[in-house]
Amino acid sequence: MAKELKLKPLADKVVIKVIEETESTPGGIILPDSAREKPQKGEVLAVGAGKVLENGQREEMEVKTGDVVLFTKYGGTEIKIESEEYKIMSVRDILAVIG
Amino acid sequence: MAKELKLKPLADKVVIKVIEETESTPGGIILPDSAREKPQKGEVLAVGAGKVLENGQREEMEVKTGDVVLFTKYGGTEIKIESEEYKIMSVRDILAVIG
Amino acid sequence: MAKELKLKPLADKVVIKVIEETESTPGGIILPDSAREKPQKGEVLAVGAGKVLENGQREEMEVKTGDVVLFTKYGGTEIKIESEEYKIMSVRDILAVIG
Amino acid sequence: MAKELKLKPLADKVVIKVIEETESTPGGIILPDSAREKPQKGEVLAVGAGKVLENGQREEMEVKTGDVVLFTKYGGTEIKIESEEYKIMSVRDILAVIG
Amino acid sequence: MAKELKLKPLADKVVIKVIEETESTPGGIILPDSAREKPQKGEVLAVGAGKVLENGQREEMEVKTGDVVLFTKYGGTEIKIESEEYKIMSVRDILAVIG
Amino acid sequence: MAKELKLKPLADKVVIKVIEETESTPGGIILPDSAREKPQKGEVLAVGAGKVLENGQREEMEVKTGDVVLFTKYGGTEIKIESEEYKIMSVRDILAVIG
Amino acid sequence: MAKELKLKPLADKVVIKVIEETESTPGGIILPDSAREKPQKGEVLAVGAGKVLENGQREEMEVKTGDVVLFTKYGGTEIKIESEEYKIMSVRDILAVIG
Repeated sequence: MAKELKLKPLADKVVIKVIEETESTPGGIILPDSAREKPQKGEVLAVGAGKVLENGQREEMEVKTGDVVLFTKYGGTEIKIESEEYKIMSVRDILAVIG
Repeated sequence: MAKELKLKPLADKVVIKVIEETESTPGGIILPDSAREKPQKGEVLAVGAGKVLENGQREEMEVKTGDVVLFTKYGGTEIKIESEEYKIMSVRDILAVIG
Repeated sequence: MAKELKLKPLADKVVIKVIEETESTPGGIILPDSAREKPQKGEVLAVGAGKVLENGQREEMEVKTGDVVLFTKYGGTEIKIESEEYKIMSVRDILAVIG
Repeated sequence: MAKELKLKPLADKVVIKVIEETESTPGGIILPDSAREKPQKGEVLAVGAGKVLENGQREEMEVKTGDVVLFTKYGGTEIKIESEEYKIMSVRDILAVIG
Repeated sequence: MAKELKLKPLADKVVIKVIEETESTPGGIILPDSAREKPQKGEVLAVGAGKVLENGQREEMEVKTGDVVLFTKYGGTEIKIESEEYKIMSVRDILAVIG
Repeated sequence: MAKELKLKPLADKVVIKVIEETESTPGGIILPDSAREKPQKGEVLAVGAGKVLENGQREEMEVKTGDVVLFTKYGGTEIKIESEEYKIMSVRDILAVIG
Repeated sequence: MAKELKLKPLADKVVIKVIEETESTPGGIILPDSAREKPQKGEVLAVGAGKVLENGQREEMEVKTGDVVLFTKYGGTEIKIESEEYKIMSVRDILAVIG
């Protein structure tokens, strides 16, 4: 799926394919239902070029295509491509890379 | 239409022609009706010169005329030219370039 | 009118003569009544020297006297000179130059 | 009055003598009663040395003693000296110099 | 009193002895009871070393011990030393030096 | 447990294993039940590379794996791995290193 | 007590032992019960290395271990060690050093 993806996110944005809780994921992490700000898992499909700093440099992106990541549930914007659920979010809404 | 457009957006602003959901678009992306912050598709018609950074440089714009983009529905200001719907928004409200 | 105007706006502020919707304007743009944040048209009558950046430079102003511009309706402060309506606003409230 | 004034405003602050609407003023500007954020006229009596920028320079002040200015009504702090009304405000609350 | 004061304010903070309205003060300024954000008078008793700017320099303080100043009534924190009322506030809450 | 952890936090984020109040901890610190913003104890399991400053440098992280820290209870996002409770938070939500 | 303290605060944070109002303190300062934002006294027990500025330098800390300080009552986070009350707060919540 990642090969065919046709979205090039801008600046520090990242396209993520949401991984459902019931799937097997690296690290065996199970997220609590009751968590106030429940994080979700997903696979990084596309990565922007990075935010421009006030000195004109771009901030290096800390995730790459193929990374499985934890992100805050309410971060980002939801889209659907051929019935698959994706999210586009700032890298700042990503908590950690798994595995 | 793009050739005749007479709007020159300022700073990091972009003029976008909204593409209705029922039109065929690159990438075959279908946006969910129920998404909390539903993104929209559009074609970039005009691009500002870029925001001025605190060091006096202009930030390079990451979209160009002709790009088809996804943007957040509530971003930008709506205008109409000869019954066509346009939006003028900051490039920061654009999520990704399609295709 | 522009020649006689006696207002010198400060920093990144701009003096604009509001153009009523029923007047003929460059580009034939008609603004929708129903737009949530309805933009207005106007002619730039005077332009400030530009905002001072944190490095001490002034940011170059992207509009000049005589430009016809689109701006957000709720931006700026309204004043009247001899029964004509003017607005003084930051250049950041200007969306685009028309024509 | 300006000669005897004994207030030295700090940073980017300015002392202004409020000019009542019924007085004759340069430019013949009449301010609408109904304006949402009604601007006022006044004469600049004293000017601070300017805000310090993050690079340690002071931002040059764009008004000087004797200037007649338009400012936003709700900006600044009101004081009275011998029954005359004054305001002390940031230069950012000043819209334009008149005349 | 100033000689014996034992408070060394931090950063851009200033210690001020509040001057009651009925006392004689330089400049003969009388503050209106009805002012929305009523300013107060006071004498500067101690001055911090200045705020550190993002370039590592300290911003020069524009008031010194002994200055009589106008400040906004709701700025700062009230303390009492031997039944005298003092305030500790940021220099940004000081409007002007009197006299 | 720390050896097997498979989370690599981004930027200035830190993964922390929450230490229950009833466990023995370095420094014998007991946290009050009634504190308005009750801090918690935890062990640092993984540390991000640090926030990127506006000059392009990374800010050095002040905690390292194995540190026992105090952090504000409402900071960060809760996750569970094999029934153990973890938090991922900005280093800015960490108050102090214990011991 | 200070010698045995085992808390190393991060960045611009400071650990403070709260001094009760009824104790004898340097400068004989008595704080009013009725003050809107009542300051408190305390002794500095530990000091962070200082906030990192956008140019990568650390801001020098203006307090040191042993200083008696005034701070705003609602600043910081409360902790208890062996029935003594401490606070951890940003140096920005400290008003002044006493004595």
